[in-house]
Amino acid sequence: MPVDSICWKAGACRIIDQTLLPEKLRYLKLTNIRDMWEAIRHLRVRGAPALGIAAAYGLYLGIRDSKSSTFSSFMKDLNQAADYLKTSRPTAINLFWALERMKQKAEDVSHLPIASIKQSLLDEAHRIWKEDYEAGVAMGDAGAALIPDGASILTHCNAGGLASASYGSALAVVYRAAESGKKIKVYADETRPLLQGARLTAWELSMNKIPVTVICDNMAGYLMSLKKIDAVFVGADRITASGDFANKIGTYSVAVLAHAHRIPFYVVAPLSSFDISIKTGGEIPIEERPHEEIQCWRGRQIIPTAGVDVFNPAFDVTPHGYVTAFVTEKGVINPPYHRTINRLFRSLHDVKK
Amino acid sequence: MPVDSICWKAGACRIIDQTLLPEKLRYLKLTNIRDMWEAIRHLRVRGAPALGIAAAYGLYLGIRDSKSSTFSSFMKDLNQAADYLKTSRPTAINLFWALERMKQKAEDVSHLPIASIKQSLLDEAHRIWKEDYEAGVAMGDAGAALIPDGASILTHCNAGGLASASYGSALAVVYRAAESGKKIKVYADETRPLLQGARLTAWELSMNKIPVTVICDNMAGYLMSLKKIDAVFVGADRITASGDFANKIGTYSVAVLAHAHRIPFYVVAPLSSFDISIKTGGEIPIEERPHEEIQCWRGRQIIPTAGVDVFNPAFDVTPHGYVTAFVTEKGVINPPYHRTINRLFRSLHDVKK
Repeated sequence: MPVDSICWKAGACRIIDQTLLPEKLRYLKLTNIRDMWEAIRHLRVRGAPALGIAAAYGLYLGIRDSKSSTFSSFMKDLNQAADYLKTSRPTAINLFWALERMKQKAEDVSHLPIASIKQSLLDEAHRIWKEDYEAGVAMGDAGAALIPDGASILTHCNAGGLASASYGSALAVVYRAAESGKKIKVYADETRPLLQGARLTAWELSMNKIPVTVICDNMAGYLMSLKKIDAVFVGADRITASGDFANKIGTYSVAVLAHAHRIPFYVVAPLSSFDISIKTGGEIPIEERPHEEIQCWRGRQIIPTAGVDVFNPAFDVTPHGYVTAFVTEKGVINPPYHRTINRLFRSLHDVKK
Repeated sequence: MPVDSICWKAGACRIIDQTLLPEKLRYLKLTNIRDMWEAIRHLRVRGAPALGIAAAYGLYLGIRDSKSSTFSSFMKDLNQAADYLKTSRPTAINLFWALERMKQKAEDVSHLPIASIKQSLLDEAHRIWKEDYEAGVAMGDAGAALIPDGASILTHCNAGGLASASYGSALAVVYRAAESGKKIKVYADETRPLLQGARLTAWELSMNKIPVTVICDNMAGYLMSLKKIDAVFVGADRITASGDFANKIGTYSVAVLAHAHRIPFYVVAPLSSFDISIKTGGEIPIEERPHEEIQCWRGRQIIPTAGVDVFNPAFDVTPHGYVTAFVTEKGVINPPYHRTINRLFRSLHDVKK
């Protein structure tokens, strides 16, 4: 089973500091909301599902010591803490989703004493963790059914155990296929500028004895032309009602290349990554990150800074036409997405009623 | 005018050590063939046209101190030196081309005393330098006619002054367009693993006050989708009779992406980069380079080495169908290439007769 990247232990949230991998495996004990904000901001914890869990535990840490004695005063503290956490990664939909869910939980138990509300919020964070674990297993099984024994998979960035409670999304497919006895080989894009593929995907796959080959991002097309890739599996940061989705910068290029080579391109993501309030990819705001991520390497300059500009978008948007299918914890979603995604969410809404 | 990356000065070949850029601008004085072999092998001098010049000067350095007194014995020394240089970069067509030309020169002046043959070989190396300089100007002018004022150009790797005697190939287009008064903006792929785009292209463009923005290789597709790229200009290491060509790894992905976005994709290369003895791209051998180039960063490990494989091809092959036109020192070559390339080389052959 994959690594234990984020969990609750002895009154604190414990995470693996992913900025130190693969050189050092160091666990951080986050005991207050500022620690969590810093960890999210600096990508010590990252990946869409893990950010939902981090936000939930972070919000609990933010109100654990609240001195409020009335519900309305407590909610003020809670909203303040949530607003603070939102500023850590303004484009991470799972972070916003988890904070909303936690606030709703507080409303649902508003009749209880403050101490019990706090406990309910911690329980809710645990539930988000557990649901993500179970979603990983379910996505993995649904995706594993799509790949034949002996397949070679290309993935981009890290949509694995390190990005989630346990199995992850794209890599859950690989883990579950391997656990079911299939021999799977993975090509991992190194994923510049922060090298999550080289540092994280390669690390966690090798820890699980899955054959993995790291390539530079610009080699994916050549590998496809050599017929060495049977399918692409990536995660998603935000999926719209039309099926257009945002994911780590470079995902779009991989999608276009896969399409040109008639290679199936699957997006693996839990339902919490869908934002059906947004219709198309053009409406998704794209975070631009600091130039230093491209200009420097662990403090050493690689680009002349005088007279040279840098462009560093963290994400790109891939139109739904490039997606062969979405793989979720509720099964596989096929085109036409504007119908199938809406139908799925309508049916879930009906179930809730 | 661009930088002086390779020249003959005071009895030695002087090059800029490109592995130290952009941090340090250091000139190396190469006084013997072993120095040149090492400089080529370790990419201190690189780029198709520059390798031709380096090979010519390297071969002269290899026979300058030959003690042979007969022509046949001298030719044995010359062939031995040429064979040695060929092992430095076995896929660099310009290197082989220059060595053949130098050997032919020796044959042409076989009636002269050995000392004069040596001088003729140095003169021939100078001629190769000068022809490359003039080819850069001619390619630049031919290519500049293809781009409108205000255009944004994407380029990959470094096909510029540092890769040649002076103007280079792809960047010659930018330099000549700028010298003619056009405002041109360049996006430079950083070009993993060795970052020739970030380190070299950005450096030489900024030295010439041309606006340049560095991006990671995986961002090119996203930029195209934002309609920020008007044309792509790249160099070539080896062009076949059909127009299929080999160039720095990642060129193929850029070509497929440009095609998908209907952006013109131009290959700028001197006639010495054409190898019409080869028909299609599948016949071009692809050099694989050491894993450390991807695994390490200036001595520091970024990928776990246990249980993780690496794939590091130095080049890829782009089929001719992706090429809008070839830009050479003899003008622009348009499709259908199997006809136009053959026609051009036939006419040159006829002229020689």
